[in-house]
Amino acid sequence: MHPFDEAIALSRDAEGVFHGRTTPEYWNMVGPFGGITAAVLLHAVLQHPARLGEPAAMTVNFAGPVPEGPFRLLVRPVRTNRSTQHWIIEQHVQDADGGTSIATTATVLTAARRQTWSASDFSAPLQGGPQADQPPMALPPGVPSWFRQYAFVPLEGEMPGAWDGREREGSLSRLWVRKAAERALDFCALAAFCDVFYPRVWLRRAHRVPAGTVSITVYFHASGAMLDAAGSDWLLAQAQGQEFRDTLFDQTGQVWDRHGNMLATTHQIAYFKE
Amino acid sequence: MHPFDEAIALSRDAEGVFHGRTTPEYWNMVGPFGGITAAVLLHAVLQHPARLGEPAAMTVNFAGPVPEGPFRLLVRPVRTNRSTQHWIIEQHVQDADGGTSIATTATVLTAARRQTWSASDFSAPLQGGPQADQPPMALPPGVPSWFRQYAFVPLEGEMPGAWDGREREGSLSRLWVRKAAERALDFCALAAFCDVFYPRVWLRRAHRVPAGTVSITVYFHASGAMLDAAGSDWLLAQAQGQEFRDTLFDQTGQVWDRHGNMLATTHQIAYFKE
Repeated sequence: MHPFDEAIALSRDAEGVFHGRTTPEYWNMVGPFGGITAAVLLHAVLQHPARLGEPAAMTVNFAGPVPEGPFRLLVRPVRTNRSTQHWIIEQHVQDADGGTSIATTATVLTAARRQTWSASDFSAPLQGGPQADQPPMALPPGVPSWFRQYAFVPLEGEMPGAWDGREREGSLSRLWVRKAAERALDFCALAAFCDVFYPRVWLRRAHRVPAGTVSITVYFHASGAMLDAAGSDWLLAQAQGQEFRDTLFDQTGQVWDRHGNMLATTHQIAYFKE
Repeated sequence: MHPFDEAIALSRDAEGVFHGRTTPEYWNMVGPFGGITAAVLLHAVLQHPARLGEPAAMTVNFAGPVPEGPFRLLVRPVRTNRSTQHWIIEQHVQDADGGTSIATTATVLTAARRQTWSASDFSAPLQGGPQADQPPMALPPGVPSWFRQYAFVPLEGEMPGAWDGREREGSLSRLWVRKAAERALDFCALAAFCDVFYPRVWLRRAHRVPAGTVSITVYFHASGAMLDAAGSDWLLAQAQGQEFRDTLFDQTGQVWDRHGNMLATTHQIAYFKE
């Protein structure tokens, strides 16, 4: 089984509650990689028997730590229309004191979409930079395990080589990315790709302050057929901060397939310590 | 009472459920202006006795129509940490058949923020264009009532003068905006300002297809003190589509105070008919 599929595996009990567990392959500093949490929550919606259509939008709120081990997902279709459906998801985890708490919340929009007039207002920045077929970046020892699930070819805004506190102007990172072990693209994988960027505040400040995503939104522009076509090929992804202020900063990003088709746009707000 | 305060007015019953009602001043085509719905949901969080800190992020999902009349807001603080708090809100409305349904869902993050290193990566486009102190745009007869609650000075990407279907390249609109009747800025008002843009697909296509916001996210970068300072002055706001495809398009936007301080960044996904 691919480590990604292992990490998003779920069972559903007689009450309709989904059960999953964290895996070491997608561990971050103090909990699972946020992208894998987004992916497993979306997976529950996709496995739900009442589900209508394909994912169109998702917001995931990282409310508290997800400990190593099992978790439960409460998944509710709160409103079903003719071609759209709205979901609320809660991730419940076991606390150290034996109780349970809500570690993550999410809302998801699924939609049965029809082919219509379509256009892009954000062209993929494919020109000029190096192309994907080159050796991916070597990861330094000691990086959290989830990094090793991906192969990265940085194009711009690489992680600072020295944490010398020399501030720079921009906070744009652009890269080619794919899974380290081949696996076809799908909606869950795309959701996780939207969170592969290291904290923008590190790039801007060259100072590795504690930082982490608090809320992420993904808009899925791709159909399942487009994701199938992208397969396990490289994706072009970029993210840029817009405002850093008083313990929080935001980030806006885009993910394209290798040919420059927009697959998803994504936004997040993250905390940082002074 | 200012029409905005009337529209976001709430009472709270013994069970902790908030009660409000739609007002004609903020009516859109087939329901209330999305921005006023976002504002009243946020207002419930701000009035909740357990609330910690100031709004930092909000996602509102427009799941179904909000009919004229009363509605109920179920507001749950699902997780409270030392300096952050996560909320889930449901707006319940009365259906024509006498039942009730969930018309809107939202998640909100509130946070007690501290002063830290801060920086911007998106400068306000203050140069070059006309400044705010000029007569606002005259609204054509027949526009939905909520438009008349605002004064607009378009700078770029004005609504097409003719619906001749002549497509254009970009979908950026930039404008000065403030309330038509003076009222100080606060978090609820800022949330509503984030939704004042007409559908990007109209601009791009010069074709007024049915369109409406399905989900909007607002990241609040301003503190309450910054909003107080902005008062009832003009705000600079802009929004741009990124991808239009198969019944949905997204939009990314920014709102600054008159002096170019970033107050909020905002994103939304909207449906459109062919």
